[in-house]
Amino acid sequence: MNPDSPSLLEARIARARDTCRSLGLDGLLICHLPNVRYLTGFTGTAGRLLLTPDRLVLLTDGRYRTVVEARQQGQSPCPGLTLALAEGGYERATAELASSVQGALGVEAAHLTLTSWLGLSASRSVLQPTAGIVESLRITKDSAEIGVLREAALRLSSVAEGVLADLSAGVRQRDVARALEAGMGRIGFAKPAFDTIVASGRDSALPHARAGEAVLASGDLVVLDFGGLFHGYAVDMTRTVVLGAPSDEVRRLYSAVEAAQAAAIAAVVPGVRFSDVDAAARGALAAAGYGDYFVHGTGHGLGLEVHEAPRIGPARPAEPIPGIVAPTDAVSLEPGMVVTIEPGAYIPAFGGVRIEDDVLVTDEGHEVLTTVDRSLRVC
Amino acid sequence: MNPDSPSLLEARIARARDTCRSLGLDGLLICHLPNVRYLTGFTGTAGRLLLTPDRLVLLTDGRYRTVVEARQQGQSPCPGLTLALAEGGYERATAELASSVQGALGVEAAHLTLTSWLGLSASRSVLQPTAGIVESLRITKDSAEIGVLREAALRLSSVAEGVLADLSAGVRQRDVARALEAGMGRIGFAKPAFDTIVASGRDSALPHARAGEAVLASGDLVVLDFGGLFHGYAVDMTRTVVLGAPSDEVRRLYSAVEAAQAAAIAAVVPGVRFSDVDAAARGALAAAGYGDYFVHGTGHGLGLEVHEAPRIGPARPAEPIPGIVAPTDAVSLEPGMVVTIEPGAYIPAFGGVRIEDDVLVTDEGHEVLTTVDRSLRVC
Repeated sequence: MNPDSPSLLEARIARARDTCRSLGLDGLLICHLPNVRYLTGFTGTAGRLLLTPDRLVLLTDGRYRTVVEARQQGQSPCPGLTLALAEGGYERATAELASSVQGALGVEAAHLTLTSWLGLSASRSVLQPTAGIVESLRITKDSAEIGVLREAALRLSSVAEGVLADLSAGVRQRDVARALEAGMGRIGFAKPAFDTIVASGRDSALPHARAGEAVLASGDLVVLDFGGLFHGYAVDMTRTVVLGAPSDEVRRLYSAVEAAQAAAIAAVVPGVRFSDVDAAARGALAAAGYGDYFVHGTGHGLGLEVHEAPRIGPARPAEPIPGIVAPTDAVSLEPGMVVTIEPGAYIPAFGGVRIEDDVLVTDEGHEVLTTVDRSLRVC
Repeated sequence: MNPDSPSLLEARIARARDTCRSLGLDGLLICHLPNVRYLTGFTGTAGRLLLTPDRLVLLTDGRYRTVVEARQQGQSPCPGLTLALAEGGYERATAELASSVQGALGVEAAHLTLTSWLGLSASRSVLQPTAGIVESLRITKDSAEIGVLREAALRLSSVAEGVLADLSAGVRQRDVARALEAGMGRIGFAKPAFDTIVASGRDSALPHARAGEAVLASGDLVVLDFGGLFHGYAVDMTRTVVLGAPSDEVRRLYSAVEAAQAAAIAAVVPGVRFSDVDAAARGALAAAGYGDYFVHGTGHGLGLEVHEAPRIGPARPAEPIPGIVAPTDAVSLEPGMVVTIEPGAYIPAFGGVRIEDDVLVTDEGHEVLTTVDRSLRVC
């Protein structure tokens, strides 16, 4: 279950080289740290990676020298990786490294800053903006990654069970968030994957409320959305509970979201378009009269980032940017993808409901990785 | 002590407009979220801001609509702010917003992605890469920001006192980190400002070790580096302790770093160059024979980001990027700047020491905001 073993890294590096070759690139400069980590296992907070047909060079700074050297000399090195130190600043060192590549050097347009682009452009002529090269590999998880995500989802579910069992009116949103985060810490998560959301009462109608000083009150809907990083991989779940006996309107709203989520999860099968999974949730909410209150997408991929490809949302016209080359976008589910399914409905000044689980696409259909019961919980 | 009151925002917006005017810009597109927050108080996770002589438009998405509208209709609005919704994607909406500006539109080169740059370039002709416009305002804190940072540093110090008092051999690095983070949470910090470092034994010689499964052992040096976000502002401190009676070599190393830190803090006076503060620390360590073991800068600014301007490090040649306009870089301390002073020395396979405090530059000299005793603590 080691997602950065030498053999896995070697396979990923080979696939990245294949993709570069197919796009006519003689090298790729990788600035996005999750992409650097995916190919090398490097977990530092600053570094850039040059990939060519015969070289793999990690540019980092003195703070990480010892740790990279120790790894390369140890049991689990990154195959073929060499180290370069960014003395005198990253921009200068990157330009020097780039000048060692003959031919077309790809850069990651979504992650390269304009500063770096202008600096590189001044020092060499053949630069090729690209999009999604390493991301196109990361979108399907290998068995080690699936193992980590499965274990992480189980652990997150156990944290949720504990906190939901204790939930009651009278506590502050922030204290519930802290209990979730403390539970994650105790069970092996390195840190929260994002700012934990505990939104009660009217706040529950704000899809991106966080957790504040407000006190949970009887009658409130409470949306709890939380996730953590486990061995570098993010899992993420949401449950909505009601404090005290629910009104008919609350029951109706909850049932509609529950049905929408069930419909979307049922749609998760290899070969189904992402937009059709979204349509399953959206159609169910519209049929229940809540179509206008579902203001976000149905889900997103999980992996080294908590929001990564694929986007499970309505089909929308591409925003083609002139001059960027990219692998063909995936549009359909494939075995090994891990996505959230999280429809919601938010009624301003009344309250909101969101239910979110993490779902693995399997050869036959899907496996829901998070295990907490989804029916309406009255606390 | 409200750092985003309407009057403060108004003053910051006016200064940003002045800076744009002085650089010949007819507008500025602000993508860096801490900069957006500084000028508007917006705390969402996605948004872009257009500033022109007579407009201030926040481009965000449906998730934040309610919260922005409620704020603008409430007691503490952002003066003059209007809302635009990024329907159909941020790139498209940004290009539309940009096309409404007559004349030269500045963009933030350090924060704009190449994707956005290419998209904008396709839709309009007069784009001007800029650097550090809003950052040049943020570098000196106003009285409300100083109030928040002072309070945050006091609270962080009290957390440190509690955890250091309990520290002993036999506990895991990660559990000490969790105790620090839990203490921060209890006392009002929203979250850690970065991954907490608890590095013991040989790990203490790695400046950017984090906190792992290793158990603190008698004789270890233990570097604890931790910080939190308090009302949006980051504070950050480091203490190094020894478990059990220190060897002579440990005492010598600690004394050298302690003296270096004292020298650098003493150098913090308005008008002194950042590089001279660094030289004070570096000179002291070199004099003690540890010059080669101080592998990072002496400090950095604190504010809405945990690492922001100024950089307190050796003078180094600028890395001028052709075609970027920017305000003149500050090179000297001014009243209202808040910086860390954190020299360290790291002896491979032996151990390391770092001592870090947060220091406000005052009219007369400085005020150390963190209050934990700096002499060698034997746990």
